[in-house]
Amino acid sequence: MKTIKAAVHSLGNIGENVINSLLCAPDFECLGVIRRASSLGTRPFALQGIPDFDSLDNLEKAKGKPDVVIICGPSRQVPEDAQYYLSKGIRTVDSFDIHSEIPELVAQLDKTARSAGAACITAAGWDPGTDSVLRALFEAMAPVGTTFTNFGRGRSMGHSVAARAVAGVADACSITIPIGGGRHSRLVYVLPERGVSFADIKKKLASDPYFSNDPLDVREVKTPEELIAVADNSHGVLIERIGASGYASNQRLSFDMRIDNPALTAQVLVSCARAVTRMAPGGYTLIDVPPVAMLPGERMDHIARLV
Amino acid sequence: MKTIKAAVHSLGNIGENVINSLLCAPDFECLGVIRRASSLGTRPFALQGIPDFDSLDNLEKAKGKPDVVIICGPSRQVPEDAQYYLSKGIRTVDSFDIHSEIPELVAQLDKTARSAGAACITAAGWDPGTDSVLRALFEAMAPVGTTFTNFGRGRSMGHSVAARAVAGVADACSITIPIGGGRHSRLVYVLPERGVSFADIKKKLASDPYFSNDPLDVREVKTPEELIAVADNSHGVLIERIGASGYASNQRLSFDMRIDNPALTAQVLVSCARAVTRMAPGGYTLIDVPPVAMLPGERMDHIARLV
Repeated sequence: MKTIKAAVHSLGNIGENVINSLLCAPDFECLGVIRRASSLGTRPFALQGIPDFDSLDNLEKAKGKPDVVIICGPSRQVPEDAQYYLSKGIRTVDSFDIHSEIPELVAQLDKTARSAGAACITAAGWDPGTDSVLRALFEAMAPVGTTFTNFGRGRSMGHSVAARAVAGVADACSITIPIGGGRHSRLVYVLPERGVSFADIKKKLASDPYFSNDPLDVREVKTPEELIAVADNSHGVLIERIGASGYASNQRLSFDMRIDNPALTAQVLVSCARAVTRMAPGGYTLIDVPPVAMLPGERMDHIARLV
Repeated sequence: MKTIKAAVHSLGNIGENVINSLLCAPDFECLGVIRRASSLGTRPFALQGIPDFDSLDNLEKAKGKPDVVIICGPSRQVPEDAQYYLSKGIRTVDSFDIHSEIPELVAQLDKTARSAGAACITAAGWDPGTDSVLRALFEAMAPVGTTFTNFGRGRSMGHSVAARAVAGVADACSITIPIGGGRHSRLVYVLPERGVSFADIKKKLASDPYFSNDPLDVREVKTPEELIAVADNSHGVLIERIGASGYASNQRLSFDMRIDNPALTAQVLVSCARAVTRMAPGGYTLIDVPPVAMLPGERMDHIARLV
């Protein structure tokens, strides 16, 4: 089996899990991690012996050119980072998750990727990502009908970040709870900064656009340890479609998953890092990817085994 | 929206449902049905005003060349029919369902399709078909683990045909019942031919390779009406995978659907008839198809809506 040479950009929670998935894959070599010079050598257990470099140049000098860079930094940074690697003709995958900005990002990355002869898959996590594939597949199976995506129960990264951004909040953890029909309530644990009134924070959160549209339950914690005690990685989703195939109504389709969140996101990134090496130059999302391209080994073996 | 010109080959249960799905689709024109000369004009309600022809030539003379032929005859006949249309440079889709013969069929059709500059998607129903996509996607999400595909409760076409083929059986209907772990029991209703012992039929069924590996419950019916009374189109499947993403075990993925069987098969055929007009020349299965290609309209609109 041909080995795919991957580099990991940024070593947070997702980057660490990406290294795990690369080490478990039969067809990947992890060349190294690219991160800020000031971070080099930190989190050695996350690195698991993988070397880290402060630039693509230095990684390439030591290990050669990667086939693909797996971008594991924050979403806001993804467009710039992906453009950088693509412009050098290196494939990228990322789990950019700001849904409303995905079409524009795909269009921009597509342009850079084509002109550099490279390919990228963006928004390659579970939502956006594998959930998107299921929503597309369900519409192909029952074109008329309604789909609900019910998230949770689990910790929402986006809402936790939004709660932390509220003035007077030292730290926060937001749990998403499905209440049916694709609607959710939010359970937010907040650690106030010293001397800040919890009641004020509660009021601010309730009027924040991230929280104002859903039932909200805000609870105060007194110590960082209390926040750690509720912030595990369990998450899940239930996607339900009821619709019609032709004139036949009552077609009922559902997908249910219960998972470790960063581990799944990282695994989808790694499976997409494999797929992207098989795609023509261009910018893609997961609904553009033939599912078999995400699996290691030979297509015909998978057809024999899975079809 | 560009209209796709489709022709339907053979008008059984699937062909009738394919016409329904074509009539409901915003981007298809159904040029006509191609069927045996002796069948012309029969089943007029199934035709719904669609003209029928005894050959591709006569359909083309009246309506022009189709963009795609949707093959709705029995599986055994599919290889020959698909080769015929493909060799004339016309795209095909079919729901060939003999799992063990799919890789060879794909290889053969791929050869014909490429040399004629056409494309085809074979095994495009729900199993093989959309279930295959789910099995592939689940492995991409959790590469190490086990998947169970639990069919039913519903009528199995293959097992009903196998039961009918047993000597002394006038007609039969076989119901598949899931018993967990991807195993099934079979409930077979049998109408014996006049003068044939039901006990003999029961013994023969129990030793038939189609039935000998599963728990079997054979029941005698006395009239064709009693068989009709148990032979509805309800079916379903539960695909379960438990596995690991990287080092994270306990990743739990499941897909559950409850459907009208021929309506879903027909809808998948029609969605694939759309996708195949967007594929490069070659022979494909559903795991080779980008999911977005199955949906009507513009890719970027679906990225904005579904990703």
